[in-house]
Amino acid sequence: MVVEPCSGSVMDIGTVAKPHDRLAGTLADEMAAVNRLIRQRMASEHAPRIPEVTAHLVEAGGKRLRPMLTLAAARLCGYDGPHHIHLAATVEFIHTATLLHDDVVDESGQRRGRPTANLLWDNKSSVLVGDYLFARSFQLMVETGSLRVLDILANAAATIAEGEVLQLSAAQNLATDEAVYLQVVRGKTAALFSAATQVGGVIAGASAERIQALYDYGDALGIAFQIADDLLDYQGDSTATGKNVGDDFREQKLTLPVIKAVAQASTQERMFWQRTIEQGKQRDGDLDTALALMEKYGTLGATRDDAVGWADKARAALDVLPDDPIRDMLRDLAEYVVARLN
Amino acid sequence: MVVEPCSGSVMDIGTVAKPHDRLAGTLADEMAAVNRLIRQRMASEHAPRIPEVTAHLVEAGGKRLRPMLTLAAARLCGYDGPHHIHLAATVEFIHTATLLHDDVVDESGQRRGRPTANLLWDNKSSVLVGDYLFARSFQLMVETGSLRVLDILANAAATIAEGEVLQLSAAQNLATDEAVYLQVVRGKTAALFSAATQVGGVIAGASAERIQALYDYGDALGIAFQIADDLLDYQGDSTATGKNVGDDFREQKLTLPVIKAVAQASTQERMFWQRTIEQGKQRDGDLDTALALMEKYGTLGATRDDAVGWADKARAALDVLPDDPIRDMLRDLAEYVVARLN
Repeated sequence: MVVEPCSGSVMDIGTVAKPHDRLAGTLADEMAAVNRLIRQRMASEHAPRIPEVTAHLVEAGGKRLRPMLTLAAARLCGYDGPHHIHLAATVEFIHTATLLHDDVVDESGQRRGRPTANLLWDNKSSVLVGDYLFARSFQLMVETGSLRVLDILANAAATIAEGEVLQLSAAQNLATDEAVYLQVVRGKTAALFSAATQVGGVIAGASAERIQALYDYGDALGIAFQIADDLLDYQGDSTATGKNVGDDFREQKLTLPVIKAVAQASTQERMFWQRTIEQGKQRDGDLDTALALMEKYGTLGATRDDAVGWADKARAALDVLPDDPIRDMLRDLAEYVVARLN
Repeated sequence: MVVEPCSGSVMDIGTVAKPHDRLAGTLADEMAAVNRLIRQRMASEHAPRIPEVTAHLVEAGGKRLRPMLTLAAARLCGYDGPHHIHLAATVEFIHTATLLHDDVVDESGQRRGRPTANLLWDNKSSVLVGDYLFARSFQLMVETGSLRVLDILANAAATIAEGEVLQLSAAQNLATDEAVYLQVVRGKTAALFSAATQVGGVIAGASAERIQALYDYGDALGIAFQIADDLLDYQGDSTATGKNVGDDFREQKLTLPVIKAVAQASTQERMFWQRTIEQGKQRDGDLDTALALMEKYGTLGATRDDAVGWADKARAALDVLPDDPIRDMLRDLAEYVVARLN
């Protein structure tokens, strides 16, 4: 049965199923196969700590958005072989490994509303189990026998790590401009989105034009997703996002709304940003001042416009792909990512 | 010019060049190409922190034993293509990534007589630059275009991570027996040695028998190497090894000499091991007591015998490989690893 796509405009959020839920419904059988493969491959004959740590994260109820993108791309390009399941599991393993290492790097205590693995076990386990999942992801993709797929995913893994290292030095440095921010965002988020969609097309033997379109869609969707996330940190509803307003500010993270405010700052305002973001010497009332400066220069609105622009690019990229309910859901997904922004 | 192998018996250590130095001489041009490739690929266009951290470790003057094994195996099997250089660099990158993550896990402050990267920069940089090097190693091996090589190295990476996780729970647990110890050693050391030699044969298109022999050689050499290292911790000359006698004991590491003593311990002796290794409640004089117990049961000698046995296995494995000066050097290398033991 083909599930009919809904219109998915900004207006009907809350009244119809969310686009990723509709995708999950359409791809239910394949997602079940992906989940079976993930459970099977996260096991370890010799080290029981591995499935303990992994299960904590894998079964925490993430949306499995990235593997779903791979399945959707493969289906959209008419694939009827078995290997998109391996690739979807690969992508989820890379994502999970990245989360484990991120939580060590960020010294996080919570993820998806639960204590992080580094808190429940220790940093050692998070580092090493992350390495194990990277290796497992690599085994899974080798099983597809496609060197092109291996090349894409190897490059994505390098871009992810490079983006994360770049973020270490860029996050608290006022010299970070929008170009560097975009580089970091491509690394931390968009590289895996674009690899996820691209390999779906490659495994299906799609044309170069369609593979490029899938890459462009994933890239733009990932960027829109991350910009929206950074914006919601300043204007989100904390009960909906599970984050407190201003967490990024308190953690001295130089995200797009601040970068835009710094670019237009007076000498005195620049000193404020140096003290609060670069030096981390924050006092009561600083978050309000920061929000007032963003208001003054309209940077929250400008950030929203950027996110919407990337979402539009994502949707436009789909034009060359086959007219199919899955394509409509991918379009709606891009719209949904920015529809939650004010 | 073919370098003639020396006899390499235990007696002439110190009077002739060490086997890995002779290998380095024979493979000098190829090692130079490997070093060029390593320097080229450890760069990062966007994140200058990456080459800083990597250079600190890569240029610290390690022996480059693992890449040399790959080059030696490929040459021994008559390879005349370019890809053994990529594979040797791959193996060194995996090794370097593992060291970076190990130092975070062990909270080490020194490696090869220099401060570790996690001390000079921070744990974050070590975790993320390690991830970057894993990704880079993966790109390098994809360039060889050999799915068989990719399969071997993916499996090795999984075995390494699994061994490291297993060690977390096994190191301070008196239930750890020789079988578990061997599993850990295969993970932390032998898996990369055996993959290094095996892929050299695979890329050269060697026969199944020779590829198996190369695997067996690397596996046994790695095990001999690690057992020797664990033994030297209790009886080494600290000026030669750069470690203090009993470091493993103080760090509560259950290595082979202790495992053999625990297996024969009286009830009272077992309580000693529980207190010192499992609980880490160590007092002055405990190391002397530990050494006396190892003496009582002859476990240092038995450990030496095990190491020699593995070195013998390594040498025997080479019998089916072509009669060549490189084969002789590999034989001498196996002998050399255990010749430094009393």
